[in-house]
Amino acid sequence: MSKRENISTSVIKRLPRYYRFLNGLNRDGVVRISSRELSIRMGLTASQIRQDLNCFGGFGQQGYGYNVEQLFKEIGHILGLQNLHKTILIGAGNMGRALASHIDFEHHGFHVVGVFDKKESMAGQMVHGMPVRLMSGLEDFCRNNHPEIAILCTPDEAAEQLVPVLLKLGVMGYWNFTHYDIVAKHPDTAVQNVHLEDNLMRLSYQVSALKNNDMKRANI
Amino acid sequence: MSKRENISTSVIKRLPRYYRFLNGLNRDGVVRISSRELSIRMGLTASQIRQDLNCFGGFGQQGYGYNVEQLFKEIGHILGLQNLHKTILIGAGNMGRALASHIDFEHHGFHVVGVFDKKESMAGQMVHGMPVRLMSGLEDFCRNNHPEIAILCTPDEAAEQLVPVLLKLGVMGYWNFTHYDIVAKHPDTAVQNVHLEDNLMRLSYQVSALKNNDMKRANI
Repeated sequence: MSKRENISTSVIKRLPRYYRFLNGLNRDGVVRISSRELSIRMGLTASQIRQDLNCFGGFGQQGYGYNVEQLFKEIGHILGLQNLHKTILIGAGNMGRALASHIDFEHHGFHVVGVFDKKESMAGQMVHGMPVRLMSGLEDFCRNNHPEIAILCTPDEAAEQLVPVLLKLGVMGYWNFTHYDIVAKHPDTAVQNVHLEDNLMRLSYQVSALKNNDMKRANI
Repeated sequence: MSKRENISTSVIKRLPRYYRFLNGLNRDGVVRISSRELSIRMGLTASQIRQDLNCFGGFGQQGYGYNVEQLFKEIGHILGLQNLHKTILIGAGNMGRALASHIDFEHHGFHVVGVFDKKESMAGQMVHGMPVRLMSGLEDFCRNNHPEIAILCTPDEAAEQLVPVLLKLGVMGYWNFTHYDIVAKHPDTAVQNVHLEDNLMRLSYQVSALKNNDMKRANI
């Protein structure tokens, strides 16, 4: 346990990728894998992999490699995926609905318990196997169901108004598709931002650099 | 111009955020802004902002601040947003369609010229104001229209088969929603990956840390 608490931020950021690869190997029936094999599949160096995975120790054995299932489970555990955090989706427009049908929440530590939208015409439509609720019922729902996480697919202004309300209701984690900067205003929250347009602008920069044969600038 | 080429990767990564804020200010009719004002709005320090924006010099003036419109345009120019890169969307499932209706491509440097899907039942359906084309027509379309960028919303295996074909047809930039690691196999490409599930797993880690009152681990 003490080892786990010392894992660096950069290793944590790479863990989801290890989790994905190990999941695939496990599914394919692979029982063990050497750091060299794993490095080839993941496009990392074997020494990087050994360094990363040694952080939580005891899995790699000289001449044996890693036990795939054990490592997969341990990484899932470190990521907290066994928790099934109760989650609400707010905003059932195009993006919200696409996430609801595209993402396998339950396999990534989340249990979607409610979907909300402010549009009356949306009320009762089925999203993620449940009827969309109106925002007027949000506070009561949270008091009764205690969601910990909100997926915000609303306009930016709505997010700004919603977060303080949700915080008071115990929602501490946010998967934020808006541009409202939650952490700046509420540092005591857990937030992952998905800023798709920012991503797209970086790609524009990279392609422009590539056209100028500037590979260094193309790989940001 | 020489100044521009020396901009560091970390500054480039922050530019889309500056662009968004300056866009908002410009739209609201703000003509100039001090680094201090901008820092409050963006949740950065004034000295960070001065350091970042001095990279491409000549915009901030002591006692005057930044000319919003000029800075906004210059950052857009550095990001290559004036280029309108010809773009194709491959995979018109939930995520592809959501992106097509959610993202303002044209304001972020991209011009979507074609939408493709392998499902015959999708053919002819309207997405982003144009009929979905079948994959069988992809190569001819690229030869005639010369798209530079592909948005990949396909299964991972399809992406692995598609990228070499697209590369030969001149598609050098990829907005990659699959888990296929394009850069590892094709280093001479410009790629932005959007790995939504990885993001979600990081959030799970953060929320678990937050519940243990471990703020350091909650802010990765």
